[in-house]
Amino acid sequence: MQTNLATAQSLAERLLIAAGVPGPAAVQQAELLLVAEAKGVPSHGLLRLPRLLRRLANGTASPTNTGKHEWLSPCYLSVDGEQGLGPVVALRALAAVVPAAERHGVAVCSITNNNHLGMLGFYAGRMAERGLACLGMTTSEALVHPWGGTEAILGTNPLALGVPAQPHPLVLDMATSQISMGKVHDHALRGVPLEPGWALDADGNPTIDPVAAKDGSIAPFGGAKGYGLGLGLGAMVTFLTGAAYGKAVGGTLDDDRPSNKGDLFILMSGGGHSAGEYLDEVRRSRPADPSTPVAVPGDGARSRYQDSVADGIEIPDGLWRELTALEAVQREAALAE
Amino acid sequence: MQTNLATAQSLAERLLIAAGVPGPAAVQQAELLLVAEAKGVPSHGLLRLPRLLRRLANGTASPTNTGKHEWLSPCYLSVDGEQGLGPVVALRALAAVVPAAERHGVAVCSITNNNHLGMLGFYAGRMAERGLACLGMTTSEALVHPWGGTEAILGTNPLALGVPAQPHPLVLDMATSQISMGKVHDHALRGVPLEPGWALDADGNPTIDPVAAKDGSIAPFGGAKGYGLGLGLGAMVTFLTGAAYGKAVGGTLDDDRPSNKGDLFILMSGGGHSAGEYLDEVRRSRPADPSTPVAVPGDGARSRYQDSVADGIEIPDGLWRELTALEAVQREAALAE
Repeated sequence: MQTNLATAQSLAERLLIAAGVPGPAAVQQAELLLVAEAKGVPSHGLLRLPRLLRRLANGTASPTNTGKHEWLSPCYLSVDGEQGLGPVVALRALAAVVPAAERHGVAVCSITNNNHLGMLGFYAGRMAERGLACLGMTTSEALVHPWGGTEAILGTNPLALGVPAQPHPLVLDMATSQISMGKVHDHALRGVPLEPGWALDADGNPTIDPVAAKDGSIAPFGGAKGYGLGLGLGAMVTFLTGAAYGKAVGGTLDDDRPSNKGDLFILMSGGGHSAGEYLDEVRRSRPADPSTPVAVPGDGARSRYQDSVADGIEIPDGLWRELTALEAVQREAALAE
Repeated sequence: MQTNLATAQSLAERLLIAAGVPGPAAVQQAELLLVAEAKGVPSHGLLRLPRLLRRLANGTASPTNTGKHEWLSPCYLSVDGEQGLGPVVALRALAAVVPAAERHGVAVCSITNNNHLGMLGFYAGRMAERGLACLGMTTSEALVHPWGGTEAILGTNPLALGVPAQPHPLVLDMATSQISMGKVHDHALRGVPLEPGWALDADGNPTIDPVAAKDGSIAPFGGAKGYGLGLGLGAMVTFLTGAAYGKAVGGTLDDDRPSNKGDLFILMSGGGHSAGEYLDEVRRSRPADPSTPVAVPGDGARSRYQDSVADGIEIPDGLWRELTALEAVQREAALAE
């Protein structure tokens, strides 16, 4: 169904508050879900909310913990997320580390035991708007096979990269897999075959059958380089945070496993000059298709966000029914108390 | 011709010393060239030496400058490379910044006005062997078109990533282009067509003719993601160093332009645990081809290096003749003085 952003965000906030999440934290968590919807990344949007509510209900996620901060140096913050809400823990950690980056030129925060962050690009974009270059990394469940391999042993290990610029920052947000497992599930639901090269089945054979791919693995993007990047980012996060790796990672796609992945942010303040002029030069450069100008990472998401603010967003009927039904259940439970 | 590493390195050192480079600096510069030969990356090897000698001879590169260090904070070193030799300036900067990274958990050095570094992975590997995670970036001449674009406006903007691990660190060293311009030239020399998708001609049309591609542009790797990564890394280096960008970059592929690209290294010391066990798990995972085990980035280069130490390296006859002829000219010039 079609709804506007504020209506959907308000529903998400009420559901979170009824699950015991304090108001300001509910706003942060709900915003991350709605930003993903608005930017056209529904895999990181409201569909994650029912699972999160189950995790809050069964005690796997904490509604109130915001992370235990330990400064290893004036520019290195180590955070134990205490199974708090991903965006709440991450935003508090970033707020603490921004002044350190501004003062020292660079600062890092590493986070463990934290729930799913949502769109990693959100954080990189926010940092870039504050004038800081940002690299963001997070590890995830093993769904991806190595280049030359056939076992799901790598996370989709995304990288976010933000660079301040006028009029708009560059914001890259990319998984290191060719596609997401969400896309495989979507194809399976709709009965549409995958493209060759996207996935392997459980025996490690190439498949275009999305049902077979669900039990198999997805390919890294860009061949050996994309594989190397995904593995390298994952190993770096593991080395710096001590988080779980490979097949031992859980907690962002299930209801009841503690989240044991790692998150890493590197913030740097610029000694150089704005990249805005260069990015504009790239945007103005000769396109392959005269009707489609060259885009800079973040341009598309920004434009989709503006459209969503103006025109609203489309939520699958089933998901909307599930969320409103959850609210009815919460209300009854509250009345019964 | 076939030669051993020590013979070739010694020739390179003598040529550099005769061009006015102090002995220890000549050893560093020569080592970077020979490591590339030994690891099977001749585009970063001895073929760059004649150009470097011309740059030293005409004053474009300085034989003795090692960079002006300015600490912007206890963990941020800004270096003006003063047109010194790339590896000499970079290794001195890294030596200065390693203790800062060990003490503060993170430290950065940004470098401008420095000649070509050689293989970026060399630095990441060395840092990883010292126990530090490392991200290395450098910008370069505009040879690559954007995804959806047709103009050479991006550098091949490589990324190096090192993660300490036993028994071997992970060392990723990748350009963000599909292929190198060196490969285009090599195909042109040998009259071998390119693969579709690798390059565009000067008018922006797809071509498999390597001669046409020399005046055109090469593709980013991995489609939109590889493009985004290359542009993002380039913009980040530009933002932090103030180096030139896009078509204004020069100095690593010519004889007489000052080198105005930027280099950036981020070093971090681990609060987590070794990634070695995970990397071994990846190496032992089921391969696509039973006779080819899954490799971790750096494995191939390490094995090629060991082979080269044992069996020597193959240098093109023409290049070897050029280098030995250069030495004869230097000797005559020295006698005439």
